[in-house]
Amino acid sequence: MSIHVKPDDIRAAARRIAPVARRTPVLTSRTLNERCGAEVFLKAENFQRGGAFKIRGATNFLYSIPESDRARGVVAFSSGNHAQAVAIAARSLGMNATLVMPTDAPKSKLDATRAQGARIVPYDRFRESREEIGRAISAETGATLVPPFDHEWIVAGQGTCALELMAEVAGLDALVVPLGGGGLISGSALIAKDLSPAIRVYGVEPEAGNDYWLSRRRGERVEIASPDTIADGLRTTKPGAITFPLVERYVDEILLVGDAEIREAMRFLLSRMKILVEPSGAVGVAALLFGKLPAGAKRLGIVLSGGNVDLEFLATLA
Amino acid sequence: MSIHVKPDDIRAAARRIAPVARRTPVLTSRTLNERCGAEVFLKAENFQRGGAFKIRGATNFLYSIPESDRARGVVAFSSGNHAQAVAIAARSLGMNATLVMPTDAPKSKLDATRAQGARIVPYDRFRESREEIGRAISAETGATLVPPFDHEWIVAGQGTCALELMAEVAGLDALVVPLGGGGLISGSALIAKDLSPAIRVYGVEPEAGNDYWLSRRRGERVEIASPDTIADGLRTTKPGAITFPLVERYVDEILLVGDAEIREAMRFLLSRMKILVEPSGAVGVAALLFGKLPAGAKRLGIVLSGGNVDLEFLATLA
Repeated sequence: MSIHVKPDDIRAAARRIAPVARRTPVLTSRTLNERCGAEVFLKAENFQRGGAFKIRGATNFLYSIPESDRARGVVAFSSGNHAQAVAIAARSLGMNATLVMPTDAPKSKLDATRAQGARIVPYDRFRESREEIGRAISAETGATLVPPFDHEWIVAGQGTCALELMAEVAGLDALVVPLGGGGLISGSALIAKDLSPAIRVYGVEPEAGNDYWLSRRRGERVEIASPDTIADGLRTTKPGAITFPLVERYVDEILLVGDAEIREAMRFLLSRMKILVEPSGAVGVAALLFGKLPAGAKRLGIVLSGGNVDLEFLATLA
Repeated sequence: MSIHVKPDDIRAAARRIAPVARRTPVLTSRTLNERCGAEVFLKAENFQRGGAFKIRGATNFLYSIPESDRARGVVAFSSGNHAQAVAIAARSLGMNATLVMPTDAPKSKLDATRAQGARIVPYDRFRESREEIGRAISAETGATLVPPFDHEWIVAGQGTCALELMAEVAGLDALVVPLGGGGLISGSALIAKDLSPAIRVYGVEPEAGNDYWLSRRRGERVEIASPDTIADGLRTTKPGAITFPLVERYVDEILLVGDAEIREAMRFLLSRMKILVEPSGAVGVAALLFGKLPAGAKRLGIVLSGGNVDLEFLATLA
């Protein structure tokens, strides 16, 4: 399969999203460096608008919709970070957004999405298909459907995360990225290898949500059952048609971490570094702290992909 | 009483502490700005080494000890952030440090202090006086006693916090600082008014720990009973002999916030800004969110003084 995302698409995305997305800080920790015997640079997407990297892809996607289609708005389905990202990007561009969200989504996420001026269409997670509802709305209204990861415009937008990190930190020899649907890592790996061909790129999945790990072993996209993991952003069940070949080509190795390791990484980030990172965002640090990364890297970039955690969940870390 | 700390002492302290203390970032939040109708700049001392601003004063103090006395080391008593700061500063300077700490201090703080190579002398909080133990050690060994706040060298060191903030953010018209013993605010207010005479400086105390608020009303230092508040860093019972006149001269107003308001500020900082700030560090944001600040400020600096919170306490925020 030919690859339709080019490094220059990511550079173009960086210019497009600049008015909407934040250039997030890169954080370091003496404690982490001492513990790991490497220099570690954490790209803090938990400080991103909407609390996660998702705004990058959503903004790039919305800006890429032809002018003639923009007035009909956008529609997306998501219970999590993608919904809020689409709502923020749409508001910034003055477009209408409709979000198909489960009736039992956290009230904080429903409120945050509504606060951006988006219309919310609730659905029953156990009896209705959000894909069908989303497609029906798109067919009726002409609104453009914004997919969560499996699209070139999304991949190019998410790749700006690694582009920023590598522009700020020279000489990284490894990059570690959470792996869910694969939008973040495929864009990030593509631009990382373009900038620095020798860099090693690692994707990290939760043990229960190992669809990419299995797919790589089998050499084809494998579907798994809905995974039971605290990493709610990495619960995708099958690699994307566009993202899988990119991951196969640009990602060196796929690593797995358990929920207990993710919790320990979250505790470390909170109590030592004073930052809140969601379970999906902490998998890279979990891989580092628990020795899952191949030895040898001296300058290590890790993407903390988001920070949206309910305080109720946080209480379970004590 | 004549004032013995000069703005140039703070500038000198900034040069002295540069190799040890971090230049902490200044954070902003669209949500906070929109909610308050002002531009708010948060000085993130929770990202400081040791997790709090205390390293500034401790380092300046240790560097100011005459060469001839340094070999005999330092001694300090503290159950909290001051202990860790003295331990870190001493290690950086190759000095011996003895910390008098309560036997029931959180294990995490004892471990962190010990990890810096400091000697810990435990004492029984209910039966022994840490001041007496500290002074006895000082008398026996010749170690210099490092006071937690009431000393010119400490005040000058803490003032570097506001010096950095104002160098980074031009045109602040108000500065909001947590008020415990008064070391942080007196140094900060002194340099702030030197740099910008029209700036308004506000100190924030917990309602239960209102020793400065009462002392200002009476025009003299008042002692209160040991206060019951979650803001463990602001439980001092009496203004300092050196810090009180500085606060009287340079601080425009003293504001009070309740524990419930502090908790709400911590929740905001965690869930919206993804940062962990300890109760004492969140009082400024509590004052802002609950309308305690006089109206009119358009560009507002707030010091988040630290981020050392046990996960057990965090669990009570849910």
